[in-house]
Amino acid sequence: MSDYLLDQLKEYTASDAYPLHMPGHKRQMHLFGDAFAIDITEIEGFDNLHHAEGILLEAQKRAARLYGADETYYLVNGSTCGILAAVSASVRRGGRILMARNSHKAAYHAALLNGLRVSWLYPDMDTRRGICGSIRPEQVTAALEAGTEAVLITSPTYDGVGSDIRAIADVVHRAGAILIVDEAHGAHFAMHPYFPETALSCGADIVINSLHKTMPSLTQTALLHVKGARVNRERLRKYLGIFQSSSPSYVLMAGMDECIRLMETQKKELFDGFAGRLHALWEHLGKMKRLHLVTGEESGLHAFAFDRSKLLISTEACGGLSGPELAKILREAYHLETEMAAERYITTIMTVADIQEGFDRLERALLETDTWLEGEIGDAVLCSSYPLSMVHTEAILTMTEADGLPHETVLLEDSPGRLAAEFVYLYPPGIPILVPGERIPKELPARIIRDRESGLNVQGLADYGGRTIQCVVMES
Amino acid sequence: MSDYLLDQLKEYTASDAYPLHMPGHKRQMHLFGDAFAIDITEIEGFDNLHHAEGILLEAQKRAARLYGADETYYLVNGSTCGILAAVSASVRRGGRILMARNSHKAAYHAALLNGLRVSWLYPDMDTRRGICGSIRPEQVTAALEAGTEAVLITSPTYDGVGSDIRAIADVVHRAGAILIVDEAHGAHFAMHPYFPETALSCGADIVINSLHKTMPSLTQTALLHVKGARVNRERLRKYLGIFQSSSPSYVLMAGMDECIRLMETQKKELFDGFAGRLHALWEHLGKMKRLHLVTGEESGLHAFAFDRSKLLISTEACGGLSGPELAKILREAYHLETEMAAERYITTIMTVADIQEGFDRLERALLETDTWLEGEIGDAVLCSSYPLSMVHTEAILTMTEADGLPHETVLLEDSPGRLAAEFVYLYPPGIPILVPGERIPKELPARIIRDRESGLNVQGLADYGGRTIQCVVMES
Repeated sequence: MSDYLLDQLKEYTASDAYPLHMPGHKRQMHLFGDAFAIDITEIEGFDNLHHAEGILLEAQKRAARLYGADETYYLVNGSTCGILAAVSASVRRGGRILMARNSHKAAYHAALLNGLRVSWLYPDMDTRRGICGSIRPEQVTAALEAGTEAVLITSPTYDGVGSDIRAIADVVHRAGAILIVDEAHGAHFAMHPYFPETALSCGADIVINSLHKTMPSLTQTALLHVKGARVNRERLRKYLGIFQSSSPSYVLMAGMDECIRLMETQKKELFDGFAGRLHALWEHLGKMKRLHLVTGEESGLHAFAFDRSKLLISTEACGGLSGPELAKILREAYHLETEMAAERYITTIMTVADIQEGFDRLERALLETDTWLEGEIGDAVLCSSYPLSMVHTEAILTMTEADGLPHETVLLEDSPGRLAAEFVYLYPPGIPILVPGERIPKELPARIIRDRESGLNVQGLADYGGRTIQCVVMES
Repeated sequence: MSDYLLDQLKEYTASDAYPLHMPGHKRQMHLFGDAFAIDITEIEGFDNLHHAEGILLEAQKRAARLYGADETYYLVNGSTCGILAAVSASVRRGGRILMARNSHKAAYHAALLNGLRVSWLYPDMDTRRGICGSIRPEQVTAALEAGTEAVLITSPTYDGVGSDIRAIADVVHRAGAILIVDEAHGAHFAMHPYFPETALSCGADIVINSLHKTMPSLTQTALLHVKGARVNRERLRKYLGIFQSSSPSYVLMAGMDECIRLMETQKKELFDGFAGRLHALWEHLGKMKRLHLVTGEESGLHAFAFDRSKLLISTEACGGLSGPELAKILREAYHLETEMAAERYITTIMTVADIQEGFDRLERALLETDTWLEGEIGDAVLCSSYPLSMVHTEAILTMTEADGLPHETVLLEDSPGRLAAEFVYLYPPGIPILVPGERIPKELPARIIRDRESGLNVQGLADYGGRTIQCVVMES
């Protein structure tokens, strides 16, 4: 087989593999043809994203109207650059931020770049399934310190779990801080009441939406919305200009504009149909006996809000079947590609671009697999034995301090007690387990080995083999 | 007319307008069709750019072989992210860097993010035409200080002027520093001996090439090459992971791989033809009487190396005709869109994707305009009267210090003597005239007004109208 990317992409997309993952256009909505035909640069009449005064300003205003923002910025470097810019604009260098621990790695990187002192909000955890719950407003109240300049919450999470942004915004604003919501996975919330309220409508100051994750838009496209007067927009624009290419792609930008145009004209019709298909799928999958469709109302999880376009299928009662094993069954027997396989569940993303065939194939695959599992396992409920909790760590240095000290390579088994000099995270979702400057907890080596053996992608380590970790060399 | 970006792009590209600008594919080489059909995410078998072990590692290795690098990284956020990462990986926070003053704004941003102390290399200047010349090795020797960790040179410049990288690398390496070359405009140098030597073959440690500028690749695509053992590649990879989307576009990546594949198979044939067409064009344009085709050998400029795929047409002897006015003639009378109009010249980019029609139209337009000018002006050589030199400024604070202090809005005419709190640059090329922390020189207000009146794009100022500038508020 050809080794070239295009050949493999064409071969793959010509197969009957069906995407239960991003991008949200699902290769079904083709908003334009040949990319090369419309790929230009900042010539006369086509404005400049970093100094928008014409057609790109108008396009961003259309997006702002659709989302109810005061101002909206196109992002061609994904939500990543939006998070980097939002944090950099909201907190002074060396300042203090309060962040949900289940934030995307870009939030950690923003702290690293700016020398921030970070306090963490650990979400409630459904330890049976290993799913992060909501951040509670009381937690935020308790964790806010004098001098906290911004609070960053991920809502919804990669798994569709939302927090009470209205109450959190109230707490944050009373403390004089800025609320940044990474709503990367909720770009579709504004489109239909079937989904949770948007962070923007609940009072967040800056909201980042990945258009490509759940909306019909090309990968790497996102929006950053601002509302109200708390954010210094001049600083925000400056940092957006820093973290994005000075030659932004007109292909990506035209894709965003077409996505917005589609919603301007057909939002209700498209999303009514989508909500109807989702509703039917949820009803039918409620019959499963061994596989469990996570509703958000499980004890231990009970999410404040839950996005039903995310289908989380838990294998908690499947005799030890793991998430990656379920994903493999779906891939190999049904040619369905899931978004993420965690230790005890899989996450699939359904979007407005999914055709009925996609819904039908997913439903059939899950119901058949459930029936097969029932035959294999019988009635015995076999929950996995150990609880899945987040690793709680202790920061001794800021990320920036740790980054500035000499590093050395340490065998993973010898690392507990040392200070980490690099990130460790699972991808997807890309949330760090360990951060530079933190003391390596004694359970980490076993956790990394277990995650790898479960078929999860442990990333961040310079040693791709995962046998060693970079640690800070402290002066003796 | 429709206000939507796609409609305007289609209308424009369906017209007979011919691009003398980037992207280098010139809308002539269509390496694949529908972008949406191949836009996927990091699913099984398609690797992960931020942790490449499979198909993306192989693709990057092919690029490294083509360019003679030890390692090559795909960039989906343009040369911008490559420059940010190269500087961040090469200089410690708060460390010292020596940079050419005609560097791209991303180099300045890297210094700002990392709190660097910057010393400047001012290139020689052709003050008659306003074109930056080479950086001389003796300058680098003189400017290197104890503790300089890296040197960053732009070669070739936006205008195709190259420096003596071999000699500069020697000086830099003897001082124990890393040489980073922003070769964004020279991605085609490695393809044919008609062009100058590549920075990589001359001993640079890190080289950044914009694929989209001069090669048939989509906008926002670039490569970062590393050679030798001086660069900490682990740090480099970390920063590339910070400054690029965690959802890199497979459309952009497939475009890069197809560009590399095309060169692997047809480099000689395509570039022999291109060099031949360029050679003929240069010969024919040598006949012009009023317009002057810059050769790089002009006294005052005499470039160390010069890229003949850039055609710089100077209006120095055209009775006061400005660059923007010449660009307007080409646009309106000939439907030719230039890459850049500077005060006294225009820059056009010809690439391997240009068809003969493009060469012919450019030649005819310039020869006809020249004849018309001769009739209008006669024999009188009317050079513009004032010399075009770079504004030399004095840094009082680092960019990072200035960024951290309070700002206030000051009328441009009242600003000389104050410390700038924001960048001022012309776009294109996006090179700062003034940097945060620098004392505003007394000629700046007049310069900004003159640039605007000449039809140049002055950017960076928060005040798009250009009447005010943000200044640092110093404690009294």
